[in-house]
Amino acid sequence: MVGKLITFEGPDGAGKTSALEAVVARLQKEVSQEIVVTREPGGNPISEQIRQIILDVKNTAMDDRTEALLYAAARRQHIVEKIQPALAADKLVICDRFVDSSIAYQGAGRGIGEEAVAQMNLFATDGLTPDLTLYLDVPSEVGLARIKQHRQNQYDRLDQEKLAFHQKVRQSYLKLAQAHPDRIKTIDASQPLEAVVTQCLQVIAQANPHLFEV
Amino acid sequence: MVGKLITFEGPDGAGKTSALEAVVARLQKEVSQEIVVTREPGGNPISEQIRQIILDVKNTAMDDRTEALLYAAARRQHIVEKIQPALAADKLVICDRFVDSSIAYQGAGRGIGEEAVAQMNLFATDGLTPDLTLYLDVPSEVGLARIKQHRQNQYDRLDQEKLAFHQKVRQSYLKLAQAHPDRIKTIDASQPLEAVVTQCLQVIAQANPHLFEV
Repeated sequence: MVGKLITFEGPDGAGKTSALEAVVARLQKEVSQEIVVTREPGGNPISEQIRQIILDVKNTAMDDRTEALLYAAARRQHIVEKIQPALAADKLVICDRFVDSSIAYQGAGRGIGEEAVAQMNLFATDGLTPDLTLYLDVPSEVGLARIKQHRQNQYDRLDQEKLAFHQKVRQSYLKLAQAHPDRIKTIDASQPLEAVVTQCLQVIAQANPHLFEV
Repeated sequence: MVGKLITFEGPDGAGKTSALEAVVARLQKEVSQEIVVTREPGGNPISEQIRQIILDVKNTAMDDRTEALLYAAARRQHIVEKIQPALAADKLVICDRFVDSSIAYQGAGRGIGEEAVAQMNLFATDGLTPDLTLYLDVPSEVGLARIKQHRQNQYDRLDQEKLAFHQKVRQSYLKLAQAHPDRIKTIDASQPLEAVVTQCLQVIAQANPHLFEV
């Protein structure tokens, strides 16, 4: 048995985190391999310090590329301190967002360029690629409506901007899924959560036939 | 008249900073163009915060690639906040160390790989390349002897390691100078300071014939 890295990806409002939690709960019941659930910055002090700089509201002067480099630095340290040791110990690592998020959000959404962000992140990952990525796809209108489900569903100017951003992010994810069909599996996340979870588990089982054997 | 970026590079003990200061003093007398002297992190709050993470002695777990990404992030912000505005205002920007230092120290010295560090820094600079680089070259034995001129000149085990590191850095600089002969001019920094400064000024004048015209 060897460690595997499975990532969950998707635009805001795809229900990614809820799906991930439900999938992990099922896996923990049905699979004997030890599971590590993580997300960046992953709890290590260096990545947390980096995250503080990114999130500090006083840092309004931060350039988009500076931010992308800081995310990549935090990612690198998370890989070295948490993901790689877990993979080396034959664990199943499930990570909420990884490089694809940077490509979609910073490369496409922020307009830095998807290829530039992908290339730069190769330096951070040093070639570590997820074995499997579950991309939870949702139409942008549905995703945004879910996010603001507690408000009246009317679009103001800022929401229009959000919609354009969200659509760029989604289009980028769809391109990634098309470019890496063996790694990235697209799940229709406009379905009810239970259906999404079932489909995620099916995809994981297909990609890891030995995982569910006793 | 347009802004120009001139960088000073060299291994430790090359006398780079002394030469830079003397060159700037002469330029300020002889040149009408406004001069901005800078070095990373360059005084902006975001780069200073990044530098604090790099220098924090508690961060012993920091991976070499994390460090390289943090240097690149600080560099990016320094470029955006200080170098680019000065170049846009037609100033002569003189910068103590730039991307070549990362290639030589982190790529070659630390062993990350020169090409990988160069590629990743392209993301940080977004194509900004110095118009001229003065590479102050010094044999590693001479450089290290200068650094510890106040101690007895005997090598212990750590000094041997330092020598090997220093030699890797120097070889990397020499390769860069060979690969970019139009941009990087090598100055023999084992000469007395005054001769180094004179040669630096000659190289700057050759590359910028209009700079010294009244």
